[in-house]
Amino acid sequence: MTTTGSPRTTIAAIAAEVGVSVPTVSKVLNGRRDVAPDTRARVEATIAKHGYRARRGGSRSETRSRLLDLVFHDHGAPWAVEIIRGVEAVAGPARLGVVLSELGGRHRPPQEWFDDVLARRPLGVILVLSDLDAGQRRQLETRSIPFVVVDTAGEPPPGVPTVGSANWNGGLAATRHLVELGHRRIAVISGPTDVLCSRARIDGYRSALDQAGIPVDPALVRNGDFFVEGGYRHGLDLLSRPDRPTAIFAGSDFQALGVLRAARELGLRIPQDLSVVGYDDLPIVSWIGPPLTTVRQPLYEMAGTAARMVLDLADGIVPDNQRIDLAIELVVRESTAPPPPTL
Amino acid sequence: MTTTGSPRTTIAAIAAEVGVSVPTVSKVLNGRRDVAPDTRARVEATIAKHGYRARRGGSRSETRSRLLDLVFHDHGAPWAVEIIRGVEAVAGPARLGVVLSELGGRHRPPQEWFDDVLARRPLGVILVLSDLDAGQRRQLETRSIPFVVVDTAGEPPPGVPTVGSANWNGGLAATRHLVELGHRRIAVISGPTDVLCSRARIDGYRSALDQAGIPVDPALVRNGDFFVEGGYRHGLDLLSRPDRPTAIFAGSDFQALGVLRAARELGLRIPQDLSVVGYDDLPIVSWIGPPLTTVRQPLYEMAGTAARMVLDLADGIVPDNQRIDLAIELVVRESTAPPPPTL
Repeated sequence: MTTTGSPRTTIAAIAAEVGVSVPTVSKVLNGRRDVAPDTRARVEATIAKHGYRARRGGSRSETRSRLLDLVFHDHGAPWAVEIIRGVEAVAGPARLGVVLSELGGRHRPPQEWFDDVLARRPLGVILVLSDLDAGQRRQLETRSIPFVVVDTAGEPPPGVPTVGSANWNGGLAATRHLVELGHRRIAVISGPTDVLCSRARIDGYRSALDQAGIPVDPALVRNGDFFVEGGYRHGLDLLSRPDRPTAIFAGSDFQALGVLRAARELGLRIPQDLSVVGYDDLPIVSWIGPPLTTVRQPLYEMAGTAARMVLDLADGIVPDNQRIDLAIELVVRESTAPPPPTL
Repeated sequence: MTTTGSPRTTIAAIAAEVGVSVPTVSKVLNGRRDVAPDTRARVEATIAKHGYRARRGGSRSETRSRLLDLVFHDHGAPWAVEIIRGVEAVAGPARLGVVLSELGGRHRPPQEWFDDVLARRPLGVILVLSDLDAGQRRQLETRSIPFVVVDTAGEPPPGVPTVGSANWNGGLAATRHLVELGHRRIAVISGPTDVLCSRARIDGYRSALDQAGIPVDPALVRNGDFFVEGGYRHGLDLLSRPDRPTAIFAGSDFQALGVLRAARELGLRIPQDLSVVGYDDLPIVSWIGPPLTTVRQPLYEMAGTAARMVLDLADGIVPDNQRIDLAIELVVRESTAPPPPTL
C-alpha cells in the first residue's frame, strides 16, 4: 500500500466528468452527508476509475485531525480491553485521541460508520477482527487514510498491513505440553470454523499429536464460540463420554472457564482428574481456581505494533513487512498435571 | 450549570484588555499550542474574570465535532468495558465517535490531555472517576463544552451533573443477605479510604449489622484496593484468625475473587465453610466456581444515562436533577449459604 502517491487526476477533472461541481466532489471525499446517494455513487465510481488519491500535506498534523480510529467487530469481546490499552499506550504519548467504535456491530450500520470516519479525517484506522469490503478499502485509500488490521482471527486481508500472532504455534505448544505430561486422550475446543485462527489452533493440535504418534479422535475435536458458553457446552458433552478425555485444550480462556464449570458440575477435580489449557492469558485467569495454564497471546503488544505501523504509514513510511506475527508463549500454572493413573 | 448563556464579553474586548490580537485569544479558546505559556495564562485569567462563554450555534452539529470524550482515571479497571459499552450504545445511534482516554493516568500529563480536548472540540465530555480541578472545569465552561461525571466513586463534585449508584444501599443489601442466612461474624473488605463509595459501602454494612443487633468488630472491617490482590491479602489474614468470619462482603467482584483464592489455599469450601458476596456483577462472575452472589452495580446503564445527559446539555437542555443515582440489585448465586453449624 502506498499512501504518498501523487494524484494524477484532479478534483476538477472528476467533477467535470461526472457533471457536478467541485464542492460536490469535495463533499463526497470528506464523507459529508448532504450529497444525493446516486450523485455520490457516480462520484465514487469516477474516483475509483481514475485511481484518484487525496494529496497529503508535508506532515500528518497539517492535514488530519489528531485522532486514530480503533474499530472492533465487537468490543464486548473479553480481550478488547487489552487491545485498547495497547493502542492507547502509543496514542497517548503521541497526543492522539483514540476513537472507539464497533463496525458491523449492534449499534450502527457499516456505511454510516464509514461516512463518519471519512468526515472526521483520522490519521489512521486500526481494525480489529473487522472486514472492510473492497469498496470501503478503496474509499480509505482514495482519502489517503492508512489502515492496519490487528488480526486476532488469523486471516490477513491480502495487501493490508496486518499484525497477528502465531496461532498454529499456540495450538502446538498447548497440546505438546499436555502430551509431555503423559496425556493421550486430549480434546480440543476451538472457535468458529469460519474464523481462520480456530483452524490454525486445531492444526497445531493435530501436529503435536501426530509428532507424538497419537491418532486424532474426531470425536474429541470441537468448534465452540470462544465464549464461556461454548466451553461449557462442549465440556459437558466431552466429559460425559464413557471414554472421556483426560485433558482439554480449550482454545480460549473464556472457553476454559466454561470447561472448568462443566468439570465442577460433574465432580471432576482440576488438575487431578482433568487438565485444562486456555488461550489468551487474560489478567483474570491467574487468579481463578485453579490458576489457569494458558497460551499467552500478546494482544497488548499486537495493538501497540499496529498503532505504530499506522502512524508510520500516516508519515508516508511503508513497512518492510505487510504481515507481522508476534510470538505466543505457553504459561504453565496449576490447571495441568499428569493424567490420573486409572484412566 | 448553564451552557447557553450569551456571552457578555467579546473576544475583541478580551484581546484588547490583555494586549494581544484577536486570533491569539481564539487560539487559546481552541486549545492551540502555538501560544506562549505566559500569554496564554493572561488570556485565561481575563476570560475567567469576565465569565466569558463561547457562543453556541443553533444546533450542536454546527459548532462541534461529532465526538464525545470519555475519560477514565484508569481504563484498565475491570469494569471499564461495561462503561464503554454503555456510552457506545448511546453514541452509536447518534453517530458520534467516542474518544477514549486516561486522565491523570500513565500515558499523558493532564494539562496536555486537556488542551487536546479543547482542540478537538467534542460535543461533550464524560468523566469516570476522574477529577477536574477548578481551573480545568472553568476552561470547559468557557468553551461551552458540557461534562457529566459517571461517579463510580460516590463523590459527586458540587455543581456537576453526575450519575452514580446507591453504594450505601449496596453495602446494606449485601450484609442483610448474610445476616438473614444466619451469619453473625461477617467481615467487610471495602476499597481505599479516600474513595467515598468505600465508606458508603462500609456504612451500609454497619447499618445492616446494627439493625440486626450485631456489634461491629473493628478487626473485621478492612480497606483493600478493589482489585484481586486486596481481597486475597485481607482474605488470607481474616481467614487465618482463630475467630475467623463465616462470611465476607468483599466490596468488589475482583476482591471476591481474591477472597475465593485465599479460601482455596486455606482449604475452606465455598459456601459450606465461608460465604462470599461481591460487588459489581461483572459478566465473568456468574461463570466462576462457585457462581458469585454479588451486588449488581448498573455500570452500563449509568454510562448510558451520563451520555444522554451530556447530549442534552449540548443541546442546551439542563437536567432537572444534577445528581442521579441508579438502583443496585442483590444477585444471589451459589457463593452464599447459612454458616457452618460448628463455628
